[in-house]
Amino acid sequence: MTQQSAFEYLSHGQIPFFRLPIAPAAAGIPHGTGAVLLGVPYDGGTTYRPGARLAPFEVRRVSALLQGYHPSHRISVFDRLGAVDGGNVVFPPFDAAAVRSRVEGAVGTVVASGAVPFVVGGDHSLALPALRAVAWHGPVAVVHVDAHLDTSGPETWGEPFHHGTPFRHALEEGLIATGQLHQVGVRGPWASARDAEPGAAHGARVHTMEDVAERGIAAIAAEIRHAVGNRPVYLSFDVDAVDPAFAPGTGTPIPGGLTSREALQLVRDLAGVALVGMDVVEVCPPLDHADLTSHLAAHLLFEGLALVALAVPGATCGGEVMGSP
Amino acid sequence: MTQQSAFEYLSHGQIPFFRLPIAPAAAGIPHGTGAVLLGVPYDGGTTYRPGARLAPFEVRRVSALLQGYHPSHRISVFDRLGAVDGGNVVFPPFDAAAVRSRVEGAVGTVVASGAVPFVVGGDHSLALPALRAVAWHGPVAVVHVDAHLDTSGPETWGEPFHHGTPFRHALEEGLIATGQLHQVGVRGPWASARDAEPGAAHGARVHTMEDVAERGIAAIAAEIRHAVGNRPVYLSFDVDAVDPAFAPGTGTPIPGGLTSREALQLVRDLAGVALVGMDVVEVCPPLDHADLTSHLAAHLLFEGLALVALAVPGATCGGEVMGSP
Amino acid sequence: MTQQSAFEYLSHGQIPFFRLPIAPAAAGIPHGTGAVLLGVPYDGGTTYRPGARLAPFEVRRVSALLQGYHPSHRISVFDRLGAVDGGNVVFPPFDAAAVRSRVEGAVGTVVASGAVPFVVGGDHSLALPALRAVAWHGPVAVVHVDAHLDTSGPETWGEPFHHGTPFRHALEEGLIATGQLHQVGVRGPWASARDAEPGAAHGARVHTMEDVAERGIAAIAAEIRHAVGNRPVYLSFDVDAVDPAFAPGTGTPIPGGLTSREALQLVRDLAGVALVGMDVVEVCPPLDHADLTSHLAAHLLFEGLALVALAVPGATCGGEVMGSP
Amino acid sequence: MTQQSAFEYLSHGQIPFFRLPIAPAAAGIPHGTGAVLLGVPYDGGTTYRPGARLAPFEVRRVSALLQGYHPSHRISVFDRLGAVDGGNVVFPPFDAAAVRSRVEGAVGTVVASGAVPFVVGGDHSLALPALRAVAWHGPVAVVHVDAHLDTSGPETWGEPFHHGTPFRHALEEGLIATGQLHQVGVRGPWASARDAEPGAAHGARVHTMEDVAERGIAAIAAEIRHAVGNRPVYLSFDVDAVDPAFAPGTGTPIPGGLTSREALQLVRDLAGVALVGMDVVEVCPPLDHADLTSHLAAHLLFEGLALVALAVPGATCGGEVMGSP
Amino acid sequence: MTQQSAFEYLSHGQIPFFRLPIAPAAAGIPHGTGAVLLGVPYDGGTTYRPGARLAPFEVRRVSALLQGYHPSHRISVFDRLGAVDGGNVVFPPFDAAAVRSRVEGAVGTVVASGAVPFVVGGDHSLALPALRAVAWHGPVAVVHVDAHLDTSGPETWGEPFHHGTPFRHALEEGLIATGQLHQVGVRGPWASARDAEPGAAHGARVHTMEDVAERGIAAIAAEIRHAVGNRPVYLSFDVDAVDPAFAPGTGTPIPGGLTSREALQLVRDLAGVALVGMDVVEVCPPLDHADLTSHLAAHLLFEGLALVALAVPGATCGGEVMGSP
Amino acid sequence: MTQQSAFEYLSHGQIPFFRLPIAPAAAGIPHGTGAVLLGVPYDGGTTYRPGARLAPFEVRRVSALLQGYHPSHRISVFDRLGAVDGGNVVFPPFDAAAVRSRVEGAVGTVVASGAVPFVVGGDHSLALPALRAVAWHGPVAVVHVDAHLDTSGPETWGEPFHHGTPFRHALEEGLIATGQLHQVGVRGPWASARDAEPGAAHGARVHTMEDVAERGIAAIAAEIRHAVGNRPVYLSFDVDAVDPAFAPGTGTPIPGGLTSREALQLVRDLAGVALVGMDVVEVCPPLDHADLTSHLAAHLLFEGLALVALAVPGATCGGEVMGSP
Repeated sequence: MTQQSAFEYLSHGQIPFFRLPIAPAAAGIPHGTGAVLLGVPYDGGTTYRPGARLAPFEVRRVSALLQGYHPSHRISVFDRLGAVDGGNVVFPPFDAAAVRSRVEGAVGTVVASGAVPFVVGGDHSLALPALRAVAWHGPVAVVHVDAHLDTSGPETWGEPFHHGTPFRHALEEGLIATGQLHQVGVRGPWASARDAEPGAAHGARVHTMEDVAERGIAAIAAEIRHAVGNRPVYLSFDVDAVDPAFAPGTGTPIPGGLTSREALQLVRDLAGVALVGMDVVEVCPPLDHADLTSHLAAHLLFEGLALVALAVPGATCGGEVMGSP
Repeated sequence: MTQQSAFEYLSHGQIPFFRLPIAPAAAGIPHGTGAVLLGVPYDGGTTYRPGARLAPFEVRRVSALLQGYHPSHRISVFDRLGAVDGGNVVFPPFDAAAVRSRVEGAVGTVVASGAVPFVVGGDHSLALPALRAVAWHGPVAVVHVDAHLDTSGPETWGEPFHHGTPFRHALEEGLIATGQLHQVGVRGPWASARDAEPGAAHGARVHTMEDVAERGIAAIAAEIRHAVGNRPVYLSFDVDAVDPAFAPGTGTPIPGGLTSREALQLVRDLAGVALVGMDVVEVCPPLDHADLTSHLAAHLLFEGLALVALAVPGATCGGEVMGSP
Repeated sequence: MTQQSAFEYLSHGQIPFFRLPIAPAAAGIPHGTGAVLLGVPYDGGTTYRPGARLAPFEVRRVSALLQGYHPSHRISVFDRLGAVDGGNVVFPPFDAAAVRSRVEGAVGTVVASGAVPFVVGGDHSLALPALRAVAWHGPVAVVHVDAHLDTSGPETWGEPFHHGTPFRHALEEGLIATGQLHQVGVRGPWASARDAEPGAAHGARVHTMEDVAERGIAAIAAEIRHAVGNRPVYLSFDVDAVDPAFAPGTGTPIPGGLTSREALQLVRDLAGVALVGMDVVEVCPPLDHADLTSHLAAHLLFEGLALVALAVPGATCGGEVMGSP
Repeated sequence: MTQQSAFEYLSHGQIPFFRLPIAPAAAGIPHGTGAVLLGVPYDGGTTYRPGARLAPFEVRRVSALLQGYHPSHRISVFDRLGAVDGGNVVFPPFDAAAVRSRVEGAVGTVVASGAVPFVVGGDHSLALPALRAVAWHGPVAVVHVDAHLDTSGPETWGEPFHHGTPFRHALEEGLIATGQLHQVGVRGPWASARDAEPGAAHGARVHTMEDVAERGIAAIAAEIRHAVGNRPVYLSFDVDAVDPAFAPGTGTPIPGGLTSREALQLVRDLAGVALVGMDVVEVCPPLDHADLTSHLAAHLLFEGLALVALAVPGATCGGEVMGSP
Repeated sequence: MTQQSAFEYLSHGQIPFFRLPIAPAAAGIPHGTGAVLLGVPYDGGTTYRPGARLAPFEVRRVSALLQGYHPSHRISVFDRLGAVDGGNVVFPPFDAAAVRSRVEGAVGTVVASGAVPFVVGGDHSLALPALRAVAWHGPVAVVHVDAHLDTSGPETWGEPFHHGTPFRHALEEGLIATGQLHQVGVRGPWASARDAEPGAAHGARVHTMEDVAERGIAAIAAEIRHAVGNRPVYLSFDVDAVDPAFAPGTGTPIPGGLTSREALQLVRDLAGVALVGMDVVEVCPPLDHADLTSHLAAHLLFEGLALVALAVPGATCGGEVMGSP
Repeated sequence: MTQQSAFEYLSHGQIPFFRLPIAPAAAGIPHGTGAVLLGVPYDGGTTYRPGARLAPFEVRRVSALLQGYHPSHRISVFDRLGAVDGGNVVFPPFDAAAVRSRVEGAVGTVVASGAVPFVVGGDHSLALPALRAVAWHGPVAVVHVDAHLDTSGPETWGEPFHHGTPFRHALEEGLIATGQLHQVGVRGPWASARDAEPGAAHGARVHTMEDVAERGIAAIAAEIRHAVGNRPVYLSFDVDAVDPAFAPGTGTPIPGGLTSREALQLVRDLAGVALVGMDVVEVCPPLDHADLTSHLAAHLLFEGLALVALAVPGATCGGEVMGSP
């Protein structure tokens, strides 16, 4: 087992993501690493309430509570996966272009090593450089879970790159395969009917919360799984997709979102897709209570890691485990 | 577009409801106004934890985040509606009878102008004077969303008028058409079986949370929509109808309530009814966290405003907008 | 009616559970008592975030808000039941073995009197001594609602008795009838596939959150009700079974849990079982917000009390009460 | 010792003020009682942020932590004093005149018995009926600790009796001896220079925070002690006299106030005066953090009780106790 | 009186600074205006915990509680001063250089009109453009109240302009007269002894918290008042100068700071200086509790406004007001 | 400089105390180490509100904000000192005797290496094993800063070792030189006059908060410094010595305590004593707000580390630094 025991992590007092080994990405990805978690403490792309820069530290802290065996998939995620805490991406925080460049570089290093990058934001503007790096695989399918469309533009207050625009750029830059932007959790008022146009022009599929209420999250996950087929998939999870009751620590909350159960099931039900990257963004600790949002982020990451672990040969074992006669 | 842009409202630093024009009701309702939002910072009718008097200020503040286009109804709500922030009703707060009289007067002014009043409480005792004013239309149908029946009485601690009695009085005063009190979200222990009698005597229809769990909110909304027909409808929304996880900022919480998604859908699904007034009450900011309850209140108001906007000729436009192929 | 009125409890300023008479268990259970609520302010069995020792005081405080009539079951719970606040179990808090012994003694006194004990923890390690006392009835069926299996072991950090092990011991000590450990709400990562073995060896039935999502809580409650038949049933409710959005005040939260509505329905739907004891544990007030978790605990206790009241001859009365035509 | 031990109060789970015997004032004051603590859960006189009605319950809860020996005065306060928790004053909360009447009655009962009343508010409007009852002694000296003058008037929003006016009425009604209103802690902007006139007309002495900063609290306490001589003294302590850093849980905070150390010393240094009544008001639990304000209120009450205990013959014992060679 | 009454501001539901008239600076400063309050909702210069962008809205809200008469100076501040709420400075928030330019422009407009600008930040990087505008008067004396020296540099993470550098630039640009940078409240560890060099090179005078503890704030205020003589004075108040107990809502707290009483006295004791501008910065509402820090900011602004009002001819009136015989 | 730069610690995402090198004590103390910080996440000795076990993680996190140069002592603390983060002491948390043994062992290892141990609790029961290890130097002088005497006993609830008894045992075991227990900050009610006897019997010197108010903290520090002479000194700092306004995150708060300024000055003014060990205990994060108490703990530790650094030859450099002409 690659997680440290409680005694081990307590003995040096530091808490890496999921008590995993620390291997800063800048120093090279260790051979055999299947997944690298990268913190990106940046929220310079925020338009309303900032604070997401503090999330990587809090998500690390609460992730100490998670064990490594996934009872639904019946695999020991970290035994199979060779995951590491790749540290944080560091950057000059007042230079947004440089931040994007550093994130793209760090994620690219992980991708090049053959490992799957997991980006722990920070705000959603980080999805763009992450996607640029992941598009090394060619245009990918994107599962984008969010209350917002994040295809605003062409600019806000004179700035084309912020946390409301990553997918507009990704579409325009050809990082996303046509018809392969799957947006789940969208709701709330828009500025106008034109808000959906940038996505629509590239065949984006919007699953609003009304769709979720009507059809159920399982049906939507199944539809997405079918639609992406065996394309490489990037999963971008903005915690404001989840209802603020379950994720109060976020900057631009909209009531009426996913339950935490639906959110976790959505990721879990993507089992079988070829996940090549994931981010969890917009966790804003100063607005959180009792670490609810950080805990949720850690569990979403664990579900994503399990998707990758499932693809490791020999990872699925038979036999009934839970509640079966 | 009648909402101010972010630059506009930021430039003078004040935040009216939904960034709408300010037009204090006392100065006369501007011609062509379709809806008037009125704050009523009063919680003198509270029996347990007070604080709802602070809600109008907080709901205004968070409402700056809402845009004006409703993607499900496919209308630009404020473009059609001519809505204004009518300011607050002012009153001598230590004189409960005078408060009721002032609220009835202010709401009456709106009604008389042909606009639809939206009352942002304050506690639920305000529903009585609002209903008195709205009954200018004759006895109305009332959709009353609440954890409690609010038909207590004849008095509590010697007082017949408080936040637990508005609908008892409204029924007795003939403000509500027979069989047209529709109560949704009721739950929790009562004092006795007799609690339901005042409503039952007037044919009130109680949809408990167990009904919601069994039948789904859509079925209940449909039943109500059918039952009210084309009668004038007053919608009274006590945020404690919603589970305290989604609406922690309220004075008399009862677990087991509506989700925010159900709450929003309930209002949205009333599309087609003839809404002649609405209140959102019992938001108690000192008990809130991260503005959850204020955000929810703002979205409930937006859904209600959309109901009125839908009725404006030409408001519905065709074409597929969200997630359609 | 055996609850004090608001005037009565306000007059002396103390708030017993549900405003019931105070009758410390140590002084003997009054004749005719049907249920005794016992606070156990102990959290020495906690492995992560402590604080549950403070819960009995907070649950008492908020329970003042609950009335006595149960509109679904149509009974006046306290009129029928003869319930009392049995005070707290007192013990030397630094001596865990003595704590277990005192809890077993106090619960045993209640059981011996013919009344049903309701234990308000405190942490989950208390379920073991409570079960030892309740097993006076012979091996019981246990409905165990929890995010965790609580069958860890044989020891953690050298200690066999803590809040992660009560049901391992209860199974090994033969306190639970074979095949009669019903676990609901289980989720999240485990240490390994072996976590389920201690339960599986005794035929435990695990209803994970995925089962709840798929089948619905009503089906699960029905299955349990059928499985337990007329065996004596002990209900052990760890509030972390409920999603942290609804129960933020708990020490080891896992997102993706029951809604408060499902939690309450689960207990309510057990109507007809022979409840011989119940605990509500792991409420941790320092991590709570706006008393959400304490309120939920009070309502869960009320639902449990109603189950006992239902069994009192003559308790069910006919006639339609709520929302029926 | 008249306080219950921890084991005792834990055994029944109720927490009277300072773990004292419960003796509701309405049932008659027990013979030999030296002081009666009365909760008054009323905040209907509040002009800004309400919530003080919840204070008596919270102050009782935290007061369990206080022992009975006063190391500076070297007396066991409760051994000497015969203090009891007199419960709460109950009243019809929507009828402010009746509230005043009931408070006057309850305090009067205590006064008539020869015991000293300690009123735990509630808002500051309660000081007026308390003073009316205490003036049974004839016009008293009043030490009024507050950020505000509380002599507003003649009315606000049409109401002459609220939490900003008690001392105007007390002066006008002749309850306070001429030149014997001593106000400490006053600060912040006023409406106009005329604010001080009602007090000035009766010779009130205002010790602003600037005086405290310049002269020190000990000098001010000494001056007051000298000024009141052996007159009966009523001490009215509004916690907003203390800086909001030390007392965040209050409705109308003004920065720049007393430290908690100065507040406690002020009361302690009044040793020797003939205290005939005290109130601690304006504790607002919904705005508190970590019970800071409730703890402070409990300690202020303890200091007041010690003043009374000191006057009991034989209470002062000699010998050096603390840190003396 | 130029403040609106409670009835007035309540009637339209908006809360300008101190209930003053709204006169957005961009529309021209009304004739006869003595002071203009400008919100600057910008925190892009923050290096640690962001959130100060939200402060102007919160400070406006709580400022409704302040009246206009200053009992120590014995003047009605707003009657004399002709103060207005100049709205917010608006700017493209992702372009830091443009932000500085807009702030300099807006403050410059106020200065040019002859009124005194009061900047409500926002982070401390705003002091630089404000000083550039104020230096229209020529090099000014600066009273800089702060836990930090804010003369870092030449750059951090590649950026020369952020909230740790405004006074380095101001000194280098010659905006501050030699020997006229007066820093009060400095404390905590530094990076090295060289931290003080940029200030020392221009004769800055550093009053550390140890100096405050030793000499008292009155002596330090007197020394500064004497040193600045009749030079134009700019007062820059970073709320982290105050101890985090009194000002928890700030991004880079250091314990051991000023009390709120000392902070207010420091400004008050500058009476007589020629104040030509003031800022209050680094209020971070997401980290605040019970609005403590916002209330303090409002009172600091009031003290600053009073300094300007004192200079208006006829403003000081004689006669004893408070607590004088 | 031995602290990592911001870029360095951000790059791996872990935050050791003060960004120092991590060197778990169990692996041997590196040669040349002057001080070792040890976390002890244990609160099993708590009698009221637990949670101090979580403090080492939070104090590490906020300590990232502290630089290394001490402007009053004019030394670069970490350049001179060779300090390391020694990790946490690990132990079986349910076995209090084993916990004491492990703490004594770990502290003893540090002492034996010639380095000075800094214990970051956890609760105050840890001071006993720490003192046992430090008494390798022979009986030491102890500066004990606390609201409580912590010499209770002989036992509480049957337990002789808990957070209220460490100094009783230390005195009885001869770990403290006669007349060399210096207690500062003591206040609040005691159980009886006998509370002071255990200390008095060994010549303990109690400096109550009344002494602090009267004489000033500087005089008290000077007296202690003189009294301890060149004896080895152990400094035990319970954060509840500080007023709860400055340190709300603690389990047994008593109002009327030290300001943070006094607390820091007390440690700073001990410059010159031979510090051989220090603890900072009773930080309880679940009760904290905005990390106030954790920040204070970090600064107290820094002041203690500076005392040790001062004793390193060549550490004091000349020249005027701050604010001198």
